[in-house]
Formats: sequence, C-alpha cells, structure tokens
Amino acid sequence: MIRVILVEPEGEYNVGFIARLCKNFDVDQLYIVNPKCDLDKAKQFSAKGNTFLERAKVVDKLEDAIEDLDLKISTSSIADSKGDMLRKSMAPWEISSLIGRRQVGLVFGRESVGLTREEIAMTDIMVFIPANRDYPVLNLSHAVSIILYELWKSKVNENRISNDMNVSSETLGFIDKYVKLIYNDVRRSDGDDAMYVATKRSLFRGIRDEEEGRAVVRFLRKVYMRILHTQE
Amino acid sequence: MIRVILVEPEGEYNVGFIARLCKNFDVDQLYIVNPKCDLDKAKQFSAKGNTFLERAKVVDKLEDAIEDLDLKISTSSIADSKGDMLRKSMAPWEISSLIGRRQVGLVFGRESVGLTREEIAMTDIMVFIPANRDYPVLNLSHAVSIILYELWKSKVNENRISNDMNVSSETLGFIDKYVKLIYNDVRRSDGDDAMYVATKRSLFRGIRDEEEGRAVVRFLRKVYMRILHTQE
Repeated sequence: MIRVILVEPEGEYNVGFIARLCKNFDVDQLYIVNPKCDLDKAKQFSAKGNTFLERAKVVDKLEDAIEDLDLKISTSSIADSKGDMLRKSMAPWEISSLIGRRQVGLVFGRESVGLTREEIAMTDIMVFIPANRDYPVLNLSHAVSIILYELWKSKVNENRISNDMNVSSETLGFIDKYVKLIYNDVRRSDGDDAMYVATKRSLFRGIRDEEEGRAVVRFLRKVYMRILHTQE
Repeated sequence: MIRVILVEPEGEYNVGFIARLCKNFDVDQLYIVNPKCDLDKAKQFSAKGNTFLERAKVVDKLEDAIEDLDLKISTSSIADSKGDMLRKSMAPWEISSLIGRRQVGLVFGRESVGLTREEIAMTDIMVFIPANRDYPVLNLSHAVSIILYELWKSKVNENRISNDMNVSSETLGFIDKYVKLIYNDVRRSDGDDAMYVATKRSLFRGIRDEEEGRAVVRFLRKVYMRILHTQE
C-alpha cells in the first residue's frame, strides 16, 4: 500500500498535479498535512486525478498521517552533507526493494523549505533525487512524479518479458531465411558472410514483438521478390 | 548534447517548470516550436531555470528544431496499440544506451493532443512512460521530468552499456538512408510504411558496434545497388 503525504503544501497547482500523478501511478492514498493552499483551486490541475483530491485525508500533524504505517520515507533536496547522519540518503531506484507488501508512506515537504529535521527524523529513510549539483532543487510535484515513477517501474519490470517470448520462432525463422536468400543473391565473396551474420543478428536482437517481426518479414520478402522478379 | 523540444506548448506553468527541469538535469538546449502561451508568464514557474527561458530558441516548425540532430526521440502517452507500427514504443530506461555523445532531441507534444502522427514520424524512436492503464496520460512537465531524470540517472550510473561509443552516427545515418531507399522501391501502398519503420528501428536497436553496423550498411548498399542495377 502506498500513501503519498504532503506536508503543508503551498501551491494549488502542485497539489492538483500530485493528485493527477496519484492516478497516473495508481497510488492508494493521498494525505495532506495542514494545507497552506486552496484545495478547491487545486482541482484545475488534477484532471482525471480529481477523485484523489476529493478523497484526500487532511490532517493537522505529520504524526497523524504516519502512525499506522510500516515504512516511512521522507524526501529532501538537501542530502549527504558530511557528518549529517539524518540526511544520509538513498536513491529513488533503491527504495522499491524495501516496499514489497508493506504499508508505505512517502513524505514530501513544503515548496519553500521542504521538511524540517524533526519531520525527517520521524521517518525511517530519506530519499534524495540525484540532479545538477548547481541546482538539485526540484519543484514539489516533479519530485513526486519521479519517486512514483520509480516505484511503478519496479512493478512493471517484475512482469517484463524479453522478446524471446514475444517473437515467434517461426517469425525469426523467416527473417533468417529471407536475409540469407537476399544475401545469397548479392554476395560476391565468402568475406561477405559478415553482412549476413551482422544483419540477421541485429534484427534478432532489435525486434520487439511479433507484430514488428512480421513487418520486417514482409519487408524482406518484398525485397527478395523484387530481386527474383528481375532475374526472369 | 541533449535538446528539449516543446511543440506548441499551451500552459505557461508547464513551460516554466520545464525550464527549471532543464537546469535541474543539466540539459543543453531548450527549443520551443510555435508556443501557444505567454513565455514571459512562464518565468513565474522557472525558478533558477529562467536562463533557459531567456535562451530558449523559438522556431516556427518542428523541422527547424530537429534538422541538425543525430537522434530524434518523440514521446507519447498513446503507444503499442495493435497494428500501429509508428507507436511501438521504448521505455524511458531503454533510451539512455542510444544517447551517449550524440546530438539528441527529445520532442514533447501539446498538453491537449500531444504530437501528430506526422510529427512522430519525423523522429527515430518513440518513448512511452509506463503508467496506470486506466489513465497513463501525464501532465507535460511531469513527463519531461521523468525522461530527463532517467537520462541523468544513466549519467550518474556511468556503468551503462552504450552503443554510441561503438556505432557512429554516420553509420546509423547510412542505415536509415538505405532502408528508406530500398523501401521506396518495394513499397506498394502507404500501409507498407510499417515495414520501413519496423526494420529501421529494429536495426537501430539491435546493432552492437561499428563493425557490425558497417557490415549491415554494406549489405543494404549491395541490396540497393542490386535493385538499381536491374532498373537499367
């Protein structure tokens, strides 16, 4: 379960955009601690995420938003300054492994001053989004988009399959066959062999799915027919 | 070199936030094609990224923003619908390996309707940000934040495998050229377009190094010469 927690957000547009992101990345809950902006105005920016604004739980203190959670993750654009144990950070791509089936809260601070040290201290882990050293300070809703994207991505990657499941052996067979037939027509010496190997392998590696594979087969077949035809 | 290209952006806040993101993630250039909003108002949202707004290059047509680039990457929230070769997508975490030292353009469409098929067709690759099937449509500047974050991340994790060190832009250019020349000879209808898109993209993705790339170019050139010859 993933809960996005905004601490004293100041900009309607950020709150609206974050509601939209909660829908985009299928978050479970949105909590808002002591909002400093007009949540109705936020609706202008939430698009199909407006249900998250309507269902958002507004509480007075951060404690009320995190007390029932297994894992609390804070975010900050100030991290890893020497000797500051509290701000030792993890990268966004490192946290997904910690989440699993836990009740997780992602805590985001104010646009102006972020989270206080006390607030960060209430969480288990602090995340820092790596960015330009000269100016790593992301706008609030963009920081949220990147964290939610990383968590979503780890979900997707768990179900990812390589093209050997997506492209049939039959299609790969046709690609091999037509590349070879065309090659046999244009080859001049045995040294040319590399052309066939390189082209076939590149196609085998590059093709993403059956549909794309068949389009490549159609192309190769047309090229071969074009060549055959001219031999009559 | 990374250039962010916005096609007819409609919202000042998005343009401003994107300028800020260009600074956060150390982008090289910002181009804006025929803006539909007030770029001065955008400054309210660009924070320390305002220099990108001041230096942004405004052009009339997408062509003017991409003509000098090695690799053009379009983005869309509509992807991988059956039978639509043009919208077969790569994931954000897959593109960094293609970038390396190339002159790269990231093309983002209108908030309202995104990029047209014609605009997507002007690019080499299309990226889709995986998100909730019920509502994968991200707000413009949040889509930008995720793509720029992924590219930054791959810079930070220098252990990436990039084919750019190994395959020259010139070689990729020849592959595009010859696949297109051959295609133009064998095509019978516009529907055939998928053959060209699928074959070119598969080769771009699949080729591992310059040697392999040149072998593929030799093959395509021989095939093309073979076809040309038979027309005499």
